[in-house]
Amino acid sequence: MKLVIVGGVAGGASAATRARRLSEDAEIVLIERGPDVSFANCGLPYHVGEVIPDRAKLLVVTPERLRTRYNLDVRVRSSVESIDREGKAVVIRDLASGRVYRESYDKLILAPGAAPIRPPLPGIDLPGIHTLRNLQDLDRIKAVVDGGARSAVVVGAGFIGLELVENLVYRGVSTTVVELQDQVMPPFDQEMTTPIAEKLAEKGVQLILADSAERFDAVEGGVAVRLKSGRTLVAQLVILGVGVRPENKLATEAGLDVGPRGGIRVNDHLQTSDPSIYAVGDAIEVRDFVSGDATQVPLAGPANRQGRIAADNVFGRHSRYRGTQGTAIVGLFGLTAAMTGMSEKSLRRAGKAYRKVYIHPAHHAGYYPGAQSLTLKLMFAPDTGRILGAEAVGGEGVDKRIDVLAVAIQAGMTVYDLEEMELAYAPQYGSAKDPVNMAGFVAAGLLRGDHPQLDFDEFLKMPISERPSLVDVRTPTEFEAGHVPGAVNVPVDELRQRIGELPVDRRIAVYCQVGQRGYMATRILLLAGRDVVNLSGGYRTFQLLRPTTKPD
Amino acid sequence: MKLVIVGGVAGGASAATRARRLSEDAEIVLIERGPDVSFANCGLPYHVGEVIPDRAKLLVVTPERLRTRYNLDVRVRSSVESIDREGKAVVIRDLASGRVYRESYDKLILAPGAAPIRPPLPGIDLPGIHTLRNLQDLDRIKAVVDGGARSAVVVGAGFIGLELVENLVYRGVSTTVVELQDQVMPPFDQEMTTPIAEKLAEKGVQLILADSAERFDAVEGGVAVRLKSGRTLVAQLVILGVGVRPENKLATEAGLDVGPRGGIRVNDHLQTSDPSIYAVGDAIEVRDFVSGDATQVPLAGPANRQGRIAADNVFGRHSRYRGTQGTAIVGLFGLTAAMTGMSEKSLRRAGKAYRKVYIHPAHHAGYYPGAQSLTLKLMFAPDTGRILGAEAVGGEGVDKRIDVLAVAIQAGMTVYDLEEMELAYAPQYGSAKDPVNMAGFVAAGLLRGDHPQLDFDEFLKMPISERPSLVDVRTPTEFEAGHVPGAVNVPVDELRQRIGELPVDRRIAVYCQVGQRGYMATRILLLAGRDVVNLSGGYRTFQLLRPTTKPD
Repeated sequence: MKLVIVGGVAGGASAATRARRLSEDAEIVLIERGPDVSFANCGLPYHVGEVIPDRAKLLVVTPERLRTRYNLDVRVRSSVESIDREGKAVVIRDLASGRVYRESYDKLILAPGAAPIRPPLPGIDLPGIHTLRNLQDLDRIKAVVDGGARSAVVVGAGFIGLELVENLVYRGVSTTVVELQDQVMPPFDQEMTTPIAEKLAEKGVQLILADSAERFDAVEGGVAVRLKSGRTLVAQLVILGVGVRPENKLATEAGLDVGPRGGIRVNDHLQTSDPSIYAVGDAIEVRDFVSGDATQVPLAGPANRQGRIAADNVFGRHSRYRGTQGTAIVGLFGLTAAMTGMSEKSLRRAGKAYRKVYIHPAHHAGYYPGAQSLTLKLMFAPDTGRILGAEAVGGEGVDKRIDVLAVAIQAGMTVYDLEEMELAYAPQYGSAKDPVNMAGFVAAGLLRGDHPQLDFDEFLKMPISERPSLVDVRTPTEFEAGHVPGAVNVPVDELRQRIGELPVDRRIAVYCQVGQRGYMATRILLLAGRDVVNLSGGYRTFQLLRPTTKPD
Repeated sequence: MKLVIVGGVAGGASAATRARRLSEDAEIVLIERGPDVSFANCGLPYHVGEVIPDRAKLLVVTPERLRTRYNLDVRVRSSVESIDREGKAVVIRDLASGRVYRESYDKLILAPGAAPIRPPLPGIDLPGIHTLRNLQDLDRIKAVVDGGARSAVVVGAGFIGLELVENLVYRGVSTTVVELQDQVMPPFDQEMTTPIAEKLAEKGVQLILADSAERFDAVEGGVAVRLKSGRTLVAQLVILGVGVRPENKLATEAGLDVGPRGGIRVNDHLQTSDPSIYAVGDAIEVRDFVSGDATQVPLAGPANRQGRIAADNVFGRHSRYRGTQGTAIVGLFGLTAAMTGMSEKSLRRAGKAYRKVYIHPAHHAGYYPGAQSLTLKLMFAPDTGRILGAEAVGGEGVDKRIDVLAVAIQAGMTVYDLEEMELAYAPQYGSAKDPVNMAGFVAAGLLRGDHPQLDFDEFLKMPISERPSLVDVRTPTEFEAGHVPGAVNVPVDELRQRIGELPVDRRIAVYCQVGQRGYMATRILLLAGRDVVNLSGGYRTFQLLRPTTKPD
């Protein structure tokens, strides 16, 4: 068996080492265009900020290690120019010498990754405009920062863009972010990004949303970025973080099937339309685990698993890739935002029925010092209660709850299962009723009809004349500090006595701070025969939907 | 409907509030012997250490709150003396006035909890000997510490005992722990407690294992604790943490079925042998979720869920309790130990077939600063790969992995599912191959026959003459720093060249530091036709089994 692997980072390196574990006899050739294999892609932004001070730490595995330990034929600075499918060979260019040669294969695994998008705008190739994909890009960006750059524009507020922003701020670089969408972190639902936008503002980052770069011009000491809105930003450093595009040139030129978004098409065994060729990682189209639809999700975890699975199949094992859930996480100035499964907007786009709830619990027992608040949004099927997706934002404990929910999604669990989950509780770690249980209670209460809820965004979209009668069940002090316009205040603890003050001929919508007192109020009114709904997640959810300080 | 609930802490309070949410008309009477309801049981040790400086924080919900918000008839300092099942009434003593009266019920929920065991030893009732169950116990212990106690003996190294030890150390109290078992934290497997024992030693705690208190004598300024071994310890403060016993007196006197360990017997609806009487919390016998056997697990999370489920059933809803997994966690001087499902020793006791693996990964990407090592032990069924239990010890990230595995157990998942889990990865939070995935790889490799493993404890139990030929595949530097007696050193990177040095007529056992290089070595030798096993978890597992500094 002669196996050739194109690309030596996450998916390619995993495929190569797995292949060697399956066969000591196989000839395994790993071709990588850059000088490094298996570097820490996800760590690159943190070397800019010197959070990871030692660049060598980013070299997870060296070519030398792959040679000695795994007996791999590693060829770095080598570019695969084309695939001869009939002749079962690739054409390789040695970038150092310029030599071009053929290498035959029995099986081929493509792991070329994805390239940062550089939109074809005037001036896009100016030297001051960078993208970040590998250590060489990193070196260039870091050199500019080390050289004393004081200002930067980051185009794109996705994960990598924001991680760069954080690290630029650490270095004292005055940073502006420009994002086409009306929110940061486009994979998240907008309201869930409010705390992130607020944190960026707090750290002095200028956030320009719903705008985009239109042209770039060289100016003294930097680049002028002209925005669609007409605004011009001048900075010493410009970084593009507007997404990636699958590196599919080799595949398309070889006539392999490619999806509408450019991802190489593979079956569950990660086999392309040519049975001798497999493909893995950011370059492929995957199946969304929840919706079943074809999608593209550039993530390191799936890439690694795909590498292993492709190697299994090359050696005759029928391992299957289950699809990608899109579990993702980003840390920013001590905040964490994470998600798994489908977002609300992706559910809407796919036309899928769903319900949602918000909770705002503390990450561990409130009586133990250091409890931090988090917001958890859960999407689930209205009929079965199957969990469809979750998003969370907060400080500590966000990663844990999203991981728990990622497993619940993978297991096909429902909101009723969340009610019964037995998670580890001591006051430093969680609560006797963990946030995950709480989400289950609220969601299951909704589906059982015990706890009718109205989504706060739906309420706000209604014409005022059609809205239910709005009752704030918090204390007068809380009410005075800020409430939803149009609400009357009847504290939950007075509700039984003052029930006569509420209209009998009209639906009532109650809310409290996070939803719990609203739940009790809903029960009291429902059991009194009233038509009542609780506004999901209370005033905190309202504040996410209607932030008081809207970014620029 | 008139519902009487006996016990107002975790299970009782949950039942009462749930009951009110289900009915505004029901008369709900909550009887509590102590002065407080719903206090933070699990927080008590932390007020001793002033980690929770404000005692009021421990009063999660006051009787007044339960009255106003939930319209409950709360009667504190009231003791239920007996149950008249035929007359459907309880006899209550008002502890303040001494008045005894009857209260009728339609349904009764028993939530009396469990009481700390006070073994009938000479001197056990001396005033210097304390147990910790409620705020009054706490006040007594804290008064002694605040009064300047400099020495303490804690009898019992279970969770509460060790939490108390930590807090006594914070207060500068010189502390000795006496434990009957040959390990701390008896629910864990012994080797997993080694880091905890070492941490206690590091903090100056004297640990006396496999010994027990035999008598107590008053001495000037304190208590002399005479141990079975003959040793005598003198301390100003003695705390017993030797477990709890279900408060079953009411139930047994009323003729309700009680299990062999004293837990009140209930069905899946938490109904006792009297259909009008339910029971929840630490006082009941539960079904072990994994083994299906009857057991007793005093934990706050399950108690809360049981309260809700009992109330559901009282009001005609057929909610079912699924059983208890025993998910538990303890924090100690920055270390965390947690478990879920069955331990190895409980599997042995139950005579269940199992296999196990150990891994010692970093809690997040090693290239990002602050990565802490954790040890994860996974037990699973040899035939199906179903996960049976997990234990972990380390710093950060232990709680997350145990919660993930708790969900996997609840979902009936297998080690093959762990391989495919898509967990949140950014370098601050995890790894592209998360510890949970790694555990899946190692376990699935074992079951598939790709990665034959021998348990290190089995190896060490073998007569030396029968042991496989032992090969340490780490570097010479690591080998020199410490290795398993009898091992020869052949670094994995030289193994292909030096394979001729290894015996051909004998099984070979390899090991490295944590198991990963041992895996590669196993593959090389296996593919070369050798009979080889990897010693699970490598030298780190050996160090857990054979700690260099054995506690006292």
